[in-house]
Parts: sequence; structure tokens; C-alpha cells
Amino acid sequence: MKQSHIFTKTRKDISKNEESKNAQILLRAGFIHKEMAGVYSYLYLGKRVLDKIQQVIREELDAIGCQEIIMTALQSKTVWEPTNRWADDVVDNWFKTNLANGTELGLAFTHEEPMTRIMREYVSSYKDLPQLTYQFQTKFRNEARAKSGIMRGREFLMKDLYSFHTDKESHLVFYNQMKDVYMKIFTRLGLGEGTFLTMSSGEPFSQYSFEFQTLSEAGEDTILYDTQHKVAVNKDDYSETIFSDFGIDMKDLNLLEGKSIEIGDIYTLGTKYSEALGLTYADANGQNIPVFMGSYGIGVSRIMGTMVEFFAQGDKMTWPEEIAPFKVHLIALNTDKSEVMKSAEQLYQDLHTTGIEVLFDDRDERPGSKFSDADLIGIPHRVIVSNRSLEHGGAEYNGTILSLDQIQKELS
Amino acid sequence: MKQSHIFTKTRKDISKNEESKNAQILLRAGFIHKEMAGVYSYLYLGKRVLDKIQQVIREELDAIGCQEIIMTALQSKTVWEPTNRWADDVVDNWFKTNLANGTELGLAFTHEEPMTRIMREYVSSYKDLPQLTYQFQTKFRNEARAKSGIMRGREFLMKDLYSFHTDKESHLVFYNQMKDVYMKIFTRLGLGEGTFLTMSSGEPFSQYSFEFQTLSEAGEDTILYDTQHKVAVNKDDYSETIFSDFGIDMKDLNLLEGKSIEIGDIYTLGTKYSEALGLTYADANGQNIPVFMGSYGIGVSRIMGTMVEFFAQGDKMTWPEEIAPFKVHLIALNTDKSEVMKSAEQLYQDLHTTGIEVLFDDRDERPGSKFSDADLIGIPHRVIVSNRSLEHGGAEYNGTILSLDQIQKELS
Repeated sequence: MKQSHIFTKTRKDISKNEESKNAQILLRAGFIHKEMAGVYSYLYLGKRVLDKIQQVIREELDAIGCQEIIMTALQSKTVWEPTNRWADDVVDNWFKTNLANGTELGLAFTHEEPMTRIMREYVSSYKDLPQLTYQFQTKFRNEARAKSGIMRGREFLMKDLYSFHTDKESHLVFYNQMKDVYMKIFTRLGLGEGTFLTMSSGEPFSQYSFEFQTLSEAGEDTILYDTQHKVAVNKDDYSETIFSDFGIDMKDLNLLEGKSIEIGDIYTLGTKYSEALGLTYADANGQNIPVFMGSYGIGVSRIMGTMVEFFAQGDKMTWPEEIAPFKVHLIALNTDKSEVMKSAEQLYQDLHTTGIEVLFDDRDERPGSKFSDADLIGIPHRVIVSNRSLEHGGAEYNGTILSLDQIQKELS
Repeated sequence: MKQSHIFTKTRKDISKNEESKNAQILLRAGFIHKEMAGVYSYLYLGKRVLDKIQQVIREELDAIGCQEIIMTALQSKTVWEPTNRWADDVVDNWFKTNLANGTELGLAFTHEEPMTRIMREYVSSYKDLPQLTYQFQTKFRNEARAKSGIMRGREFLMKDLYSFHTDKESHLVFYNQMKDVYMKIFTRLGLGEGTFLTMSSGEPFSQYSFEFQTLSEAGEDTILYDTQHKVAVNKDDYSETIFSDFGIDMKDLNLLEGKSIEIGDIYTLGTKYSEALGLTYADANGQNIPVFMGSYGIGVSRIMGTMVEFFAQGDKMTWPEEIAPFKVHLIALNTDKSEVMKSAEQLYQDLHTTGIEVLFDDRDERPGSKFSDADLIGIPHRVIVSNRSLEHGGAEYNGTILSLDQIQKELS
């Protein structure tokens, strides 16, 4: 893509109401547009990042046999009353609306209930289990405060996965597998180093639940973490024995304290939803038994915000390789010189032809302005074509002048 | 994908409340789930169809330089009051909701206003134009009646594209180009034959607007169409002179009357939104001029419904090649015979390896049940491996027994 063609531009000034670092960088880089607090549109470059995060998650979930679907925002109260989650004094962040005939509807903040109801149509025997379904879907949460940019939105993109097993034992095998799958996803997303499998307080069906927390000063949580064992515990849930329950000796741990962002979580739901909504299966003896469930979330737009919090230094952002809106930022200086533009255009076409995603800064701008824009946009590989580079036989990459052929090879 | 692995199943019985053919077929085939009237979730096979329709549209729009973004459902009234489209007595299908602090919000039924506001941040000079932006986004419309399955939803997926030009002349060049782009899209989607560029009543800035209407008994519109010239007019807008305005002599036309579904439309918006929301540019003389706009819609989920209305015959559906959830349906009969399962599994793996999308019916079911399921699911190419086919040297494709190698070649 030629940069002169993109409708967005970088901006120096943004509203002082924007307190969060992630929204400041993303607004200034033209990745997002703020519709209102906690509600952001994703523009051309931002949409590319969001799509790439989704694609990494999708590949890893499809690889373990999960099936993608898409459920709806509009919800009927009949689906939520059986679990007692319809009432506003139980769930305090519903957005509610009405049909033309007055019927009250809600905008889904999660999808356990509608997913369970769909499964009721298709599961009747133990032979129909296990099942794994997921979606990338826009969630609505009526947050009283929304000051964390795209990290805690009123409307945001989430990946939610649901598992359905015959019993706790088969559930736990999958649940434990998901710890590794999630860590693999976060590693591919470039957040592996700063992300910890974090023990949290338990649920009705399990002594502990697990979150994935990424170290960041912008985080709302505080964890005690060990970099060698890659484990952590929510500070509020810390006890002398909590790690020993997981077979780790306290004396092997070197716990540090840090603020962190929850980027994913995995829950054992047990039979809470299946019992309330009548999702049962007949076992080999014909006996009806409630399905054993789990749910597994990743905040897709939150991941994008977390990356900015984690990787941006001052006015300079660097997106992880797999997630960057383009792999290579090709910058032409001295654009008034026809040899420069000819060489840069040739390199752009050659890289493009070999399937490398290139953003080509072909704009007639001062070098300083081009570099500060490139810093904000954060593409990991930068190639510069200028009078000087051509005189030295090619283009600049990583501080060295290489021939255009060499650059092609380096980036492939 | 192995069919035994998919969580959905075909169903014989669906609610008698479902009047539309498209919803009946799609519900029975397990492609969709009805959450309430006009609100449907898309399950594994249905999501694949929806994705493929989007991908065709995306490819054609990217090819002409359009930029993909994604805007939000939640809307602030400040964005809609300047065009007088906030009030419920002006726009009668808003879903409205409230923030926790009581502020009224709407759920977007379209996006001219927020798109214009975003552009205001980035357009200031004639050098910033033209621009073309689009999104695939979930629209909410509070329809009083929703009885057409996924063809007229209260929550549905739409592609909306917006164009921004300096003046009417440059706008019209693009507008006319879009007629061809849309027809190319509908042709790739398999609907080219039944779809007509249809003249409709005019707008403030143009004598006529254009819709794309697909012939169907399920349609809500009636058109007069000519199959040779591929043009039509909405019956209500017919006049003796309407075709001559487009350079077609009435005596060359053979007009037929038919019911039809509107699957796309292209509008000249002119300066209505740019004037109301202050989207102007400075021309070469430094004079401020309102941007000239157009909007271009395709109902993505409606296209999927239209395909069922158009292609399904009784209980048999056939998806167009590019849109089918899988290209090939590989059906193993006599699944109790190990040679059959071995050969079918081998063919499945071989096709998969060469990048062909295969649904492999490996289930232990009666042949009749397998075939009626396959009819409902509607995958265009069917390959059968059975005792009989193996005895004759391979598998059955298009009524002929071919060797597995030959089948591989035929389908590649």
C-alpha cells in the first residue's frame, strides 16, 4: 500500500481527555477513532492489526478442532432468566433496549446462555460430546467508567470459546491443554515474555481459576510473578500454600510484584449453565446427565491496547512481527529525485510480488516528518531509499546499505 | 473437515413459525440458529458461507483501492442530530439504549453520519480526495415485522462503502464504475444471471438511483426487466421514457415482470451529509467546499438468504462454487467395511493436501440419510466411495466411476 493513498494521517494533537497511553498512540497514529468513551472505530491500519490478532488466535483454535460460529448481540430475556443473569441488580453492566412492540431486549456482554441453548438443539447423547465452539464477536458492557482506551471498552471485540464435555475428568484434560494453547497464542502475538499463567480465586467447580496476565504499569491488577517458572498469583489470592498446590516449592520461587493486564482467562463452568438451561446428554445407560462446560476468553481489542502499553516507548511504537499492519515500511526520501522514486517504486513492486506486505511512504514530506510518522505507526522493518543510499549502491536497512537484491533476500 | 466432528446436524422438524424458505432450509441444514424473529446466529457451516461472501466482496473492493475499516454500533445523538436522523419520528427503526449515567445512545442502522465525522478529521484539502472506505458491520434495525428469515433482519451483516469526491463529475465517474464492480461481485457470487441493474426513483442529487435486484418469488419488490440488456426498472417507477433516458430504445426491449430481492444499492448522497456535519475541503484557490459523497450497500446475510431462495429446489440446495462451505462433499457408504474407510480417508487426505476444501461424511449412517443430508447442505461437488465403487476401480463422481487419481485431477 502506498502511504499517500491511505485516508488517515498521523496527528500531533489529540484530546486531553484521553488519559490512556494506548488510545493516545493509536489515535495519533490514525489506527482508531474515538466515538465516545470506551467506544472506538478501527480505521485502515488499526483494522489490519485487529484482523491479524484474530487470525493467529483462529489458527491455533482450529488446529485443536474448535469450530467457529458467530452469535448475536440482541438477546431475549427468556434465555437469561433461568441463570438469574437478566436482572440489572444481578448483572450491572447490561445495555437494554426494546423491540417496537415494547419487548425488552439486552445486548450480550458474554454468551454462555445463548451458546448453551444452541447446544441443546444438537447434543442428546454422550456420542455428541465433546464439542468446542468459539466466535469473534462484539460485546457490549455498560461500564460506569471507561478510561483505559481500547483496553476496557463499552463495545469491544472478544474471542469467546466454549467447551462441552461429558464429565469433569474429560473437561480437565482439555482445560489443561488450553493453558498451553493460550500461552502459544500469546507467544505468537509477541506477548509471551511478559505474560504469566496466573492463579486466581476459585469457582464453584474448581479450587482455582486461571488468568493470563501481562505485566504493564497500565494494568488494573497486581500480581506476584516468577519469571523462571512463568507462574503468578493475583496478589489478593496469595497464600503460603498456593504454589505448593501446583507442585512448585516456595523456596524455588523468586516472587516479584507488578501491575498487570488480564488478557485472557479460562474458566471451569461445570454444570451451572447446562443445569439451568436443560443441556443434558444420555450416557451409555440412557441416564440423563448435565453437560460439563468451560469458557475461555481473549480480549482481542484489549490485546491490541496491551501491545501498545507493552511495546511503545514515548512516541515510538514497534508492533510484533506477526501483528504489524505491514511487515516492511519502505521510506523514500528526496522524492523530488526521479532516480530515488524509480528505485523505491521498483523495490516496492518486487517486495509486493514476493508476497511481502509493504507500506511505501511515497509522500512528498520532509525526512523528519516521515521518520516520526514511521515511529508512531510502528512497522518492525524499515528500509530507506534516498540520494545517499543510491550513491552507496542501494537502500538502507538496519543501519547498513544493501543492494536492492540483498534487501529482498533479507526480508523474505 | 470430518462430518462426524461438526457439532451441528441436519434436522427434519423446525418451528412452523418460520415462514421463509431461506430460514427453513438453513435451520434444517444447521447453518443458522434463530435467536428471535429477525435475529439469527451463524453456526459452523453458515459462518463459512458468510465469510466467503465477504471475501469475494473484499477482494473486488480492495482491487479498486477501497480501504476497510470497522465502525461501532453504539452511537451518540450529537452525531445524528445535525442531519435530523436522531428523532424516532424521523427514523422509525432505531434501537435506543442508555449509558449507566442516563445518556441516550442508539444502535447504528447505517453509518453515513459517523463516517462523515471520521473523514472530517482527515480531509482538509482537495489533495486529500478522493477517498473510499468500507466495512463489514453488524447493523441493527428495529423492524416491526421480521418474517423473511435472514433476508430482512433486526440484526444483520452489511457491507457499506462510502465515497468522497471533490465534485459531482469525479463522483459520477466512480459511481458508474461501481455499477460494473457490483455486477462483477454478484456474478462471482453466482447470482449474476438473475440480477438486474434496476433504475429507481431519484434522489436530491440525481434523477435516478440504482439498485441491484435478484429475481425471486420471495422478493418484496416487483421489477420490469429485460434479460438481453440486463436492465430493469422498479414497477412503481416505470414510465415510457425511463429507458430512453439511458440510451435504450423501448422497441429493443422485451420487458417481463417479476418479484425480486434488492441485494445491493448505490446512492449519490451529494453534499447532504458533508454540509450538515461540516466535512469540507479547500480547493486550489483556498475556498472551502463541501465534499461530494456516495454510499454503496450490499446486504451480506441477505445475499446468503437470496442464494437459498434462488438455488434451493424443494429439499435440495446447491451453493455456488465460490461460496459453498466446502468445495467437495466426500461421502463414504458401507462405513463398516475397512477398505471403504481406508480409501475414503486416503482420498480425503490427498484432496486436503492439495488445498481442496472437503467435507468428509465419515458417519455411520444409512446411505439415504447421508444423501438427504448432503442435499440440504448443498456442496456442489459430490464424490461417493462405496463397496460398489471400489469394485469398479475407484469412487463415483458425476455418475461415473473414476480412479482416485482421476478424481483428484478433476477437482483440482
